[in-house]
Amino acid sequence: MVKIKDIAAKLGVSISTVSKGLHGASDISEEMRQQVLDTAVMLGYVVKEKKSQDYHKVCIMVENMDYENINQFGYELITGFKLMAQEQQYQVDVIPMDVYTQMQQSYDTYMKQQSYSGAFFLGFEMSDAYMQQLKHTTIPTVLFDNYISNKHVAYIGTDNHIGTKSLVNYLQENGHKKIALLNGSKNSYVSNLRYEGFLAAMKDVGLEIDENLIGYGIGFLPETASSYIPQFIENGATAIVCASDLIAAGAINEIHKLDLRVPEDISITGFDDLPIAKYLAPPLTTIRQERFTLGKTAFTLLSQLISAVPVSTMLFHSELVIRESVSKVK
Amino acid sequence: MVKIKDIAAKLGVSISTVSKGLHGASDISEEMRQQVLDTAVMLGYVVKEKKSQDYHKVCIMVENMDYENINQFGYELITGFKLMAQEQQYQVDVIPMDVYTQMQQSYDTYMKQQSYSGAFFLGFEMSDAYMQQLKHTTIPTVLFDNYISNKHVAYIGTDNHIGTKSLVNYLQENGHKKIALLNGSKNSYVSNLRYEGFLAAMKDVGLEIDENLIGYGIGFLPETASSYIPQFIENGATAIVCASDLIAAGAINEIHKLDLRVPEDISITGFDDLPIAKYLAPPLTTIRQERFTLGKTAFTLLSQLISAVPVSTMLFHSELVIRESVSKVK
Repeated sequence: MVKIKDIAAKLGVSISTVSKGLHGASDISEEMRQQVLDTAVMLGYVVKEKKSQDYHKVCIMVENMDYENINQFGYELITGFKLMAQEQQYQVDVIPMDVYTQMQQSYDTYMKQQSYSGAFFLGFEMSDAYMQQLKHTTIPTVLFDNYISNKHVAYIGTDNHIGTKSLVNYLQENGHKKIALLNGSKNSYVSNLRYEGFLAAMKDVGLEIDENLIGYGIGFLPETASSYIPQFIENGATAIVCASDLIAAGAINEIHKLDLRVPEDISITGFDDLPIAKYLAPPLTTIRQERFTLGKTAFTLLSQLISAVPVSTMLFHSELVIRESVSKVK
Repeated sequence: MVKIKDIAAKLGVSISTVSKGLHGASDISEEMRQQVLDTAVMLGYVVKEKKSQDYHKVCIMVENMDYENINQFGYELITGFKLMAQEQQYQVDVIPMDVYTQMQQSYDTYMKQQSYSGAFFLGFEMSDAYMQQLKHTTIPTVLFDNYISNKHVAYIGTDNHIGTKSLVNYLQENGHKKIALLNGSKNSYVSNLRYEGFLAAMKDVGLEIDENLIGYGIGFLPETASSYIPQFIENGATAIVCASDLIAAGAINEIHKLDLRVPEDISITGFDDLPIAKYLAPPLTTIRQERFTLGKTAFTLLSQLISAVPVSTMLFHSELVIRESVSKVK
């Protein structure tokens, strides 16, 4: 096991300098502190648990996801996580993250510097610097809707594959044959899973895939993917599977602009069951994600990683919520 | 919510008769007790939690799996599960199960009659009656290496897909091109996952699948699958991926009978990392399954299902353990 004296020897400085660097003392230079942290990471030094009551700290890093109020996707995930963490005497910091910050300092260095025992990642894309660095981290990290092959990293989410299949099956039972997919970002792990689930389900029920009926957005926002609507209609789509409730809201809006009706002219499904889903016109048929319970369970999962349980994947059953945005094909 | 009086009304008997039937009293006929239980199941009656300290009982149902001593696959799964259950004041009964018993009484009726809050299934095949009944059960049930789409049922296991891929990748890095798969039972969910992982990995590294190099056993026992060895050798296999350490042990034995050497003439890999794996001649390269931790976590997962957390799937990272049963192709 790497000790403080090993870091000191490597850098040719005193043990007390290393100790100051590791514990954030103010009487050494920022440059030296960075060198100490980088060397600690390089040698695989593990910060010892402090005895003080306020030690346990974890963080939630959020990118590309809104979480300010209950109508937004991240809100209940974060509330659930915090609730469970507080029960276990953990402090939780929510950290908005962006591409630029990720280039300033490596993930491991950041986490050690802030004395975080672990993190919960929300909304990251596969191309993010921190996602790349997670392949080699030793810091317990739980990802919402993302997968990395490393025993210190676990993936939690709803079973997207089966969720998407149950939407396609439901549309097919209602007589739809030309079914379009309005997906999230191409850089998103979960978009890929939903695309694969869509292909598998279409194959299972004997329907053809038309490449003109597949579209991708930037993120999962209403504005972006809905630009595909005219193309889908031109190519004969009678139903559109949307990768989020927000995309579905954008699609409905776009369809109304073209003087068409949902579901009489075209059926729409969402994903997530955000609080807004039942208030859309028409109320949205969608897949429910148990965000509050997912958030609580994400903390349990992070505790398991911290206890060296090598969990890779934890999925929730998906539940089809039938409302009024799908009609039978005449 | 269904009450005792609803069951009584349905059967046209008194409330006290129903109560006796539900609580196993001896002064009603066996036939009446069975009718009460069947009706309770049909109506979806939920047994109320008793206040007595000894109430909490769960069971482990085992079929097609040995667990008597530490060298056998089920032993640590069961020990881990029991340890965690005892910490939480749960009593655990281990119930050997067979096809015949499953035909005598339905799963839900059995569980209600015995007042079990939930069960952990080991070694069941997809064709088993209880596996079929799990599609509609409301009893929290955790399956090792099996999947059922029902929010009261969860699957726990090692990531078989990635485990099998890492074996194929390792063999390919050692120059193997003609790689055979000696799989477990065709009725096993996990055999299917390992087969799919094998296909995907072979495709990824640009190797061809030869149907003459694929074999299935009865269960995961050494005797059955190893009958494929002469066929594999005839068809030019230089390496055999075995779906369990026991199958690998059988394969090595069979190869020695043909006066060939492992790994000089043919490389062999296992799956599980049973205690015996490192004592085989040669010591076996395999995928480690953290059976003790899987068992402990299976109980945590069952508690989550009992608390209505709709977990579908929990997978552990797989770890390649390199020993001496694989050599480079000359």
